Amino acid sequence: MSILIKGARIITQNANREMLKGDILIEGNKIAAIGKELPKEEVEEVLEGKGKLVFPGLVNTHTHVAMGLLRGYGEGLPLHRWLEEKIWPAEKKMTSEDVYWGTMLGTIEMIKSGTTCFNEMYMFGIKHMADAVIETGMRAVLGKGVYDTPKGRDKESEMKELKHKVEEVNGMNSRVQVAVAAHSVYTCSEELLKDAKAFANEEGLQFHMHVSETREEVFNLLKEKKMRPVEYLDSIGLVDEKSVFAHLGWVTKREISLVGKAGATVANCPVSNLKLATGGICPVAEFFDAGANVTLATDGAASNNSLDMFETMKFSHLLQTHKYWDPQKVDMDRLWDAATINGAKGMGINAGSIEKGKLADFVFVDAKAVNLAPLHSDWRSIIYSINPGNVTDVIVDGKFVLKEGKITLVDEEKVLEKATEVAHDLVNR
Amino acid sequence: MSILIKGARIITQNANREMLKGDILIEGNKIAAIGKELPKEEVEEVLEGKGKLVFPGLVNTHTHVAMGLLRGYGEGLPLHRWLEEKIWPAEKKMTSEDVYWGTMLGTIEMIKSGTTCFNEMYMFGIKHMADAVIETGMRAVLGKGVYDTPKGRDKESEMKELKHKVEEVNGMNSRVQVAVAAHSVYTCSEELLKDAKAFANEEGLQFHMHVSETREEVFNLLKEKKMRPVEYLDSIGLVDEKSVFAHLGWVTKREISLVGKAGATVANCPVSNLKLATGGICPVAEFFDAGANVTLATDGAASNNSLDMFETMKFSHLLQTHKYWDPQKVDMDRLWDAATINGAKGMGINAGSIEKGKLADFVFVDAKAVNLAPLHSDWRSIIYSINPGNVTDVIVDGKFVLKEGKITLVDEEKVLEKATEVAHDLVNR
Repeated sequence: MSILIKGARIITQNANREMLKGDILIEGNKIAAIGKELPKEEVEEVLEGKGKLVFPGLVNTHTHVAMGLLRGYGEGLPLHRWLEEKIWPAEKKMTSEDVYWGTMLGTIEMIKSGTTCFNEMYMFGIKHMADAVIETGMRAVLGKGVYDTPKGRDKESEMKELKHKVEEVNGMNSRVQVAVAAHSVYTCSEELLKDAKAFANEEGLQFHMHVSETREEVFNLLKEKKMRPVEYLDSIGLVDEKSVFAHLGWVTKREISLVGKAGATVANCPVSNLKLATGGICPVAEFFDAGANVTLATDGAASNNSLDMFETMKFSHLLQTHKYWDPQKVDMDRLWDAATINGAKGMGINAGSIEKGKLADFVFVDAKAVNLAPLHSDWRSIIYSINPGNVTDVIVDGKFVLKEGKITLVDEEKVLEKATEVAHDLVNR
Repeated sequence: MSILIKGARIITQNANREMLKGDILIEGNKIAAIGKELPKEEVEEVLEGKGKLVFPGLVNTHTHVAMGLLRGYGEGLPLHRWLEEKIWPAEKKMTSEDVYWGTMLGTIEMIKSGTTCFNEMYMFGIKHMADAVIETGMRAVLGKGVYDTPKGRDKESEMKELKHKVEEVNGMNSRVQVAVAAHSVYTCSEELLKDAKAFANEEGLQFHMHVSETREEVFNLLKEKKMRPVEYLDSIGLVDEKSVFAHLGWVTKREISLVGKAGATVANCPVSNLKLATGGICPVAEFFDAGANVTLATDGAASNNSLDMFETMKFSHLLQTHKYWDPQKVDMDRLWDAATINGAKGMGINAGSIEKGKLADFVFVDAKAVNLAPLHSDWRSIIYSINPGNVTDVIVDGKFVLKEGKITLVDEEKVLEKATEVAHDLVNR
């Protein structure tokens, strides 16, 4: 399969952060060439890029996609009642089939808002998630969640199930990677964390965790281990280039430095942090300066309530400006990096920029949308005005997954109906 | 003209904040009836509401719509350089014709994102703005800006021009109201403020101001007058039910109480405040408790860079949650009130809820959008997941201004072309 995109405006996210007007040639699942007036003979499909902006697909580095089934459920309750009376009881009744439909729904939402890869953490249903990702044409890193300290769970069963699921899902499709997702320091024993990390290392997998989301988590760990979360994780060998830590809203300068020196990945979830009133704003600017791989994420739709990475890009940038009373604290180059090339790096995939040899994962936007006009010279500032309604087409792995606003590989209406049905059934079960 | 909407889900924003499934009958520019199975004989137009959500049109209570021409211009510069090197020189060269095209562009953007009325403040071009508002079918309160302390300006000329413009624009169309917009305490003499307010009172007009946007403004006024901005305005009789104060990011409890007791309108501009790093978050929760009329606004697109009120609704709510570390601090009812019925009240218009006798200003949203699914019982929580791409139709003053995603009364493509052309010309003039 080969596709030629003619004459679009391209935000490349290459090393020089060039913005070009030109053509992109896709062969198979990769970008074969970028240039002016590439020949269109022998190409199977030509897309007129005039009037469109193209940029690398966004990478959402922390989500729980199936929780979209609970979007808006119990909204307005205080946090502990929302969790105890609504979310947890519903999640207990959730089946793998529910997870499948929730993943279908969320994946379509992500595609329609310009995301081409997401990093998942969920405790079960990973095989059904993989099915949904494969069907919609999406790319994902699916983290099999483990935790052992709550009653009724134990390390041996967690590790057994983890190994089983990794074996089951690995190799299903090149667009699906498996990862190890240890839930948190407050739900995982030290032994489980070490064993899970050792297994991830053996298999060469990313290691995904919630870290320092709340003050309570930090307070309790300090009491128990005399260390803060990142210090503790570092002391047991869990902070390295393959670590993806979500939240990091309550961290010290020493912890920022540990994450930075290791080149670990920060998955900043600003909307979720605010919605759940965790009080902490991830110090993105300082993580950048320390050398960390800073990325962006929506978290699950139950605590957002959207999977819109455009919103998260704008929001995260505004919060840094606000936190430091300085509109220059994080420049727009870094914001774009976080959402694209750093996200891809954190997932260990060869994407995140529009360059020869990279995976063909990108997003087309209507450059003639009134909310983007008048497009002065730096098109990258569109990130402050864009919305999902501006996305026209999305290519993942060299294939259209959205074309002229329509989901191509699955029946969107059927997914919507079925996901709505299982969601309503789930909360009334 | 009569329109019947059949079988939609309706977020009424009436006193009981009912959510209904039923019909809405519009006669002329007003809502004539709401009910089940209203007869469709003798109705000129019937709209199938099944699969749609309907709610009152959003009211944006502080903007400078023509500044959309400068959206993204000089983005990334430090604030003072952005203003001094880019925005102010460009604004100096701006003509009334530019203002017309900027208003056309911004009005279309607002309609497409569910706004049916906006409150404007601009120093010139008000007649051309009115033309644009009338043509697009929008509703607006156009504040003629005045200021006299900068060199080359004086009170007499400001008042003369104000009176002239009010006379010129008043009565052009029932959808266009004029208001008096005194720029700020740091650009207006006490005499001008008093005269402008006296004139507004005589004419029964709203009185619109920037108040307590920055620490500098508060600091300088304290030095000069030994009073904080709201105290000072109160001392000269400028705080009452017809006052609309934008920003209020840096206020004391005493000032909150003064605004509340007067029942004045607060125009909270969270995105702009963060983008310009003013450091203050308007204490919306406290203003509500004090009895103020709390509303929401985008500010101009140069400091946002969007006119999307959905985003502002979500953002403002998240910031209150964050400010007080409490997700219950402002409940969702109040958020909706701020964006709809309070906005209408602040503008002095009979709109903001879907009730018999109210102006027919409302918004239709695709209830089958994946990003809104699964729509559990409280549809109002859509505000946490909606985006402008979900808006299908908009009615203002009993007429469709957007129908099935298309702007009805003006040629959107022509506006886009022309506005882009004048914007590029403006910055290169």
